[in-house]
Amino acid sequence: MKVIIIGGDGYCGWASTLHLAAAGMDVVIADNFARRAWDVQLGVSSLTPIAGLEQRLAQWRDLGGRRIEFVNLDVTEYEPLCELLADLAPDAIVHFGQQRSAPYSMIDRDHAMRTLINNTAGNLNLLWAMREYAPDAHLVKLGTMGEYGTPNIDIEEGFIEVTHKGRTDTLPFPKQPGSFYHLTKVHDSDQIYFVCRTWGLRATDLHQGVVYGVHTDQTIQSPQLVNRFDYDHVYGTALNRFCVQAAIGHPLTVYGSGGQRRSFLNIRDTVRCVELALRNPAEPGEYRVFNQFTELFSIAQLAHEVVRVGTAMGLDVRIEHQENPRAEKEQHHYHTLNANLRGLGLEPTLLDDATLRGLIETAAQYRDRVDLSVIRPAISWKPRAKAASSLTA
Amino acid sequence: MKVIIIGGDGYCGWASTLHLAAAGMDVVIADNFARRAWDVQLGVSSLTPIAGLEQRLAQWRDLGGRRIEFVNLDVTEYEPLCELLADLAPDAIVHFGQQRSAPYSMIDRDHAMRTLINNTAGNLNLLWAMREYAPDAHLVKLGTMGEYGTPNIDIEEGFIEVTHKGRTDTLPFPKQPGSFYHLTKVHDSDQIYFVCRTWGLRATDLHQGVVYGVHTDQTIQSPQLVNRFDYDHVYGTALNRFCVQAAIGHPLTVYGSGGQRRSFLNIRDTVRCVELALRNPAEPGEYRVFNQFTELFSIAQLAHEVVRVGTAMGLDVRIEHQENPRAEKEQHHYHTLNANLRGLGLEPTLLDDATLRGLIETAAQYRDRVDLSVIRPAISWKPRAKAASSLTA
Repeated sequence: MKVIIIGGDGYCGWASTLHLAAAGMDVVIADNFARRAWDVQLGVSSLTPIAGLEQRLAQWRDLGGRRIEFVNLDVTEYEPLCELLADLAPDAIVHFGQQRSAPYSMIDRDHAMRTLINNTAGNLNLLWAMREYAPDAHLVKLGTMGEYGTPNIDIEEGFIEVTHKGRTDTLPFPKQPGSFYHLTKVHDSDQIYFVCRTWGLRATDLHQGVVYGVHTDQTIQSPQLVNRFDYDHVYGTALNRFCVQAAIGHPLTVYGSGGQRRSFLNIRDTVRCVELALRNPAEPGEYRVFNQFTELFSIAQLAHEVVRVGTAMGLDVRIEHQENPRAEKEQHHYHTLNANLRGLGLEPTLLDDATLRGLIETAAQYRDRVDLSVIRPAISWKPRAKAASSLTA
Repeated sequence: MKVIIIGGDGYCGWASTLHLAAAGMDVVIADNFARRAWDVQLGVSSLTPIAGLEQRLAQWRDLGGRRIEFVNLDVTEYEPLCELLADLAPDAIVHFGQQRSAPYSMIDRDHAMRTLINNTAGNLNLLWAMREYAPDAHLVKLGTMGEYGTPNIDIEEGFIEVTHKGRTDTLPFPKQPGSFYHLTKVHDSDQIYFVCRTWGLRATDLHQGVVYGVHTDQTIQSPQLVNRFDYDHVYGTALNRFCVQAAIGHPLTVYGSGGQRRSFLNIRDTVRCVELALRNPAEPGEYRVFNQFTELFSIAQLAHEVVRVGTAMGLDVRIEHQENPRAEKEQHHYHTLNANLRGLGLEPTLLDDATLRGLIETAAQYRDRVDLSVIRPAISWKPRAKAASSLTA
């Protein structure tokens, strides 16, 4: 199977690339290093020292890995994308090539706009290019569980049967995205659903939960293959950030009460889910949504787990509740379903003590690289006047 | 009340501008003449000869109309938009400044992208500019009934109460937009809902039906004030197109069976609805949707009405069913609600024989300006292979 991985140099993209290559697929990475550039622009960097892509690929070859090709490509440029699809005639395209931080998209107008253009214009380009040059390829697109928001009903997978005034229909699940980033993912989903039913394209929209973990069976094979490990306030997701904080003796920064509940998965399962989607493609004209996660936790619950495991490791771990910079409910119903991927055989990697200990140990290994100044949340969802006053407070 | 009308030189925008000025509001048009440029680029033009905006405004002044200001502004440029809001401190902003043709957005990748950028990037700019410089202003945004698609349940106004597995919530109405244009309107709605609940902005999202008619009490006062009347396959909406076709002896071009049902309103009601929304503003933090239409018809039903009235006028009017270029259901449930605007006092202008006769007469008046070559649908929703073969057929 020939697969193009757009964004194959990023966190989920790199891990997936190696996993799929190891699984015998012909993988081509298309990336423009936007993620690395954003780190530079924001003054943050991965806790783990990540090698350049050329070094990564050279090392993978040296270890006897299946050949992985690379094309430097910006999805917001249409012509090169068309050429790539026409040249390669891929069986599938996995699209990770998006700006994936909610706080980034809330910094100011410029960052909201960059997120909008990179994500939705890039997605639109990809769909038109597929229509013209790869109409039979299977699109596997990374969405997010955050598209749904936190409704007071159970969250189904993409669609829901609604009965209203005596009539019934199966309709797109009503979404309430909570940032400009999440808004772009909803728009992408809407675009993809439209082209599947209109042009007969086939797509799987992976509504992924919050990913934690750093190693997979492949990335652990060499320091040159190590994956990124973000702990900063822009790109660091909760559990990864907590583990870094525990390792360096920084209080775990819980936003608000921590009662926010979310869907999580280990990056080892991310790569398996992508493989499952690829090996069981959607039918022509089919748009399907897989909720891609394995467990539900509240943020406070995760922090308490890190305190418990970190303390057992002899670390001094405390929790510090901070004013929540986001506009989100802190007490809410949250029940999400993931029957589709389970039905295809996903065996969840559960969050156990060994996993947490491993993450904290990895963080400790690189503790000299931690920049404390980039941990505290500095991006606010608040209206202008209140955001300004909370900055001076 | 000081109101900025973005897109005030367009079809609904111009009629609304004059109506609001006549109603005693201080109106500022912000427009970059994109709509006129698209006509030029597509090789089409309004059946009615429309004067330039400067001439329009000069004539309005000469007739004793309340002063209307004009600012040349492209909403995709952020800084001038910020300056405008900061300078004027408007009480309200009516946003008509969007590419509003579904076929236009389906021409090719370029036209889909222009629609995406003009509409969603423009809308994003406006929301950020309001956050920074006009957080108390009331946004009145033009959406479309087409955002909903044609679900098999009644279409409520923006939100719907959903009971699922024993739990209940009021959620955004699930939408199934049927073109890249409609997709942008859904994204705008999602953006606006988000900033209302996050930043406390206030907004009314007018989900407008298909507008017909050309004259209002103001535009009819002088040929220099006449509104545009589109009959081409890109911008001509069904009823207007049928009336032009009846007037010139061209068959009425019904796409497919004509069983498609839609929501309609006279442009005389468009302007009243906008006024009602402005005079009854949303509360701070409130996002509300008004379904803006007065009557439901199938396309075939409208065509038959035009045949009946045209024939009574002595015209030879026939219907020609054409292969439907769009991907849409031709037999479907369609029941839409408009309680919000009715509750504020909207008295519908119903589609009667006099209205149809007037439209056909106006069309006949300008029959020498008709370009027959721009009527037949030439933009297809179909997949590439099938679209290509139907072009050669």
